[in-house]
Amino acid sequence: MSLAPLILKPKQDKRLRQGHIWIYSNEVDTKATPLKGFEAGQQVEVKTSQGKSLGVAHINPNNLICGRLLSRSSKLFGRGNMMKRIESALALREACFTDGPYYRLIYGESDGLPGLVVDRFGDYLVVQISTAGMEKMKSQIQGALTRILDVKGIVWKNDGKMRSLEGLDEYVECADDIPHMLPLMENGTRFEAPVIEGQKTGWFYDHRLNRQRVNQLVKGKRVLDICSYIGGWGVQAAHHGAAEVVCVDASQQALDWVKHNAELNGVAEKVSTIKGDAFKVMEQLQEQQEQFDVVILDPPAFIPKRKDIGPGERAYGKMNQLGMRLLKHEGFLVSASCSMHLDETRLVSLLNQAGRHLDRQVQIIERGSQGPDHPVHPAIPETRYIKSLLCRVSYRS
Amino acid sequence: MSLAPLILKPKQDKRLRQGHIWIYSNEVDTKATPLKGFEAGQQVEVKTSQGKSLGVAHINPNNLICGRLLSRSSKLFGRGNMMKRIESALALREACFTDGPYYRLIYGESDGLPGLVVDRFGDYLVVQISTAGMEKMKSQIQGALTRILDVKGIVWKNDGKMRSLEGLDEYVECADDIPHMLPLMENGTRFEAPVIEGQKTGWFYDHRLNRQRVNQLVKGKRVLDICSYIGGWGVQAAHHGAAEVVCVDASQQALDWVKHNAELNGVAEKVSTIKGDAFKVMEQLQEQQEQFDVVILDPPAFIPKRKDIGPGERAYGKMNQLGMRLLKHEGFLVSASCSMHLDETRLVSLLNQAGRHLDRQVQIIERGSQGPDHPVHPAIPETRYIKSLLCRVSYRS
Repeated sequence: MSLAPLILKPKQDKRLRQGHIWIYSNEVDTKATPLKGFEAGQQVEVKTSQGKSLGVAHINPNNLICGRLLSRSSKLFGRGNMMKRIESALALREACFTDGPYYRLIYGESDGLPGLVVDRFGDYLVVQISTAGMEKMKSQIQGALTRILDVKGIVWKNDGKMRSLEGLDEYVECADDIPHMLPLMENGTRFEAPVIEGQKTGWFYDHRLNRQRVNQLVKGKRVLDICSYIGGWGVQAAHHGAAEVVCVDASQQALDWVKHNAELNGVAEKVSTIKGDAFKVMEQLQEQQEQFDVVILDPPAFIPKRKDIGPGERAYGKMNQLGMRLLKHEGFLVSASCSMHLDETRLVSLLNQAGRHLDRQVQIIERGSQGPDHPVHPAIPETRYIKSLLCRVSYRS
Repeated sequence: MSLAPLILKPKQDKRLRQGHIWIYSNEVDTKATPLKGFEAGQQVEVKTSQGKSLGVAHINPNNLICGRLLSRSSKLFGRGNMMKRIESALALREACFTDGPYYRLIYGESDGLPGLVVDRFGDYLVVQISTAGMEKMKSQIQGALTRILDVKGIVWKNDGKMRSLEGLDEYVECADDIPHMLPLMENGTRFEAPVIEGQKTGWFYDHRLNRQRVNQLVKGKRVLDICSYIGGWGVQAAHHGAAEVVCVDASQQALDWVKHNAELNGVAEKVSTIKGDAFKVMEQLQEQQEQFDVVILDPPAFIPKRKDIGPGERAYGKMNQLGMRLLKHEGFLVSASCSMHLDETRLVSLLNQAGRHLDRQVQIIERGSQGPDHPVHPAIPETRYIKSLLCRVSYRS
């Protein structure tokens, strides 16, 4: 069976040849192959203006990114291909993680499966589909995952904001008997993640290695965890020997989960919580002359879109300055950002400015990124988003 | 005692105000304060054109970088300050490393001591001085180090190329009874470093964390270590369970030390060596259809100066392509560079090109940098130089 062709305009094949896999709608020769002639999620054979095959792609005429290459072959991408991609992704995770099956198993484009994210919690999987093409392959995805792994249950957490761009409904779907709190282990600490009610897939595996590094610095220390969510940083720090941890979040429910996770690890008496706006709470702590050995700043994206760069950078700058003010001499600051639009060099610059403003000496001792279960595709800069700068901050001598 | 002033031209204080600590000779108001009026290594009080004090600096009229700020105070920088800086640097290392006193204790500008590098091998220290100012403070440096640490001996490895820019002689100086091979431990593996006859200070502590990550992937694997020097990567991999390690270096002496270090860890039978040019040896291995699970590329700087960017990038590109050719399906490639003039984004791009050329899928699973004993100064990009990209490379499915 041969696939319908999608023909690009002359010279619009450069990005694909260089390794990227996205096709923008303005690159398509719509006279030869009108986008309206395709169904959302259909597979097509992408061709240059001269008829050379570039591979097979999922197409969606409704989206600005109208195509995503699935392979450089010209054949239909079926369940066999899906199996191979998942097996290859699994092999990478099994090579990298020896402390249990808790990781992002599939990370979209970087694992050759654009539009698909799968987080693994032991025998349970939380799946996020963000393209019409992958939505169409839902039964093949389920079939392949079930063949490869001993799956007890799958949560289809298909409520991401990007789905509307693809004309997809938002929904969450799972069998009735799936626990709403799924256990996981990270760096030796136990957690339960709210996979239905929580943020995204319930847990953020991306910061695992950055948390591991912080764990090594916290023994006997007083730690402040800003935008703690369910305690990924803070509870781990307590479990790794911190003397006291304060978790701050705007959501009482998140803080209840912090308490729950602290109890799981027998460190509830060391972990306290403050509900409130991060900036306001930090200002109050400063007024109360509170000081910490370690301050962790892992806020939500302040720069969701390119147009937000100005105010977003000011928010990062302000938060980092507040964080530095709350640090003791020679304390450690974790300054994280998940905004794709904030360059790491800009974050370094904001830290430098905060240090200059407060007359502190800043030393960047680790430049963290997302873990190996979130591989970066070298031709797709969009696959890198996490920055996590670990700094020591000293008063001037 | 007040210091002689060094007056900057109008508006030439911006870089210093932003946190950098270098002063270029063309920024000095040489009519008001002629550079020839200063002695190399003298301390001066740096002032704006309007007479505002910016701090105290070492000056050297012979160098393009004619001044380096020591502090933002206007007082002489003496042994007391030296002590405080070293103590602060030591506190950072002691917080970060729990497996013994083996690290870069002082990393120049980033530790507030421009022109001074100290590597620690237990109770022995290898010191590198690269500025006239620090050379003048040699006895204070020795005094401070000896007070703070139980020093058995100091090697003054003052033979760096940068010294000639400061008008300094090159020399190596140490007591007669200092062992020429100093023991160290890295990630649980024992080494002896040739601190007198070897490269730089004898050992490269900067890649510690990058090696640690590779150690976790090598169990039962066949590993190729290109530009191995004395076995930092290769012997560690063997000690962490690699089935077989091949170390390649142009220096027979380095390979003899590889053997020695392999013996220290009881893994000599797993480690073989090939003497020769890295490119030629890799081509030969390819002709012999040799394949490896892990290939480590840690060459010397191919881009020592900005003018070398063109040929240097081609050399990195060629080496990475050769490395990929020698990898099995789903093997791991470590692509390191210590060239300050090679941007990480360029290295990513070279890896992408190599992958495209060979029709391999490249996933970057870790973006390593220098370890925390080489902190980065956020206002001094020159303090960051190590790139180490850990990739998985798959044949196309």
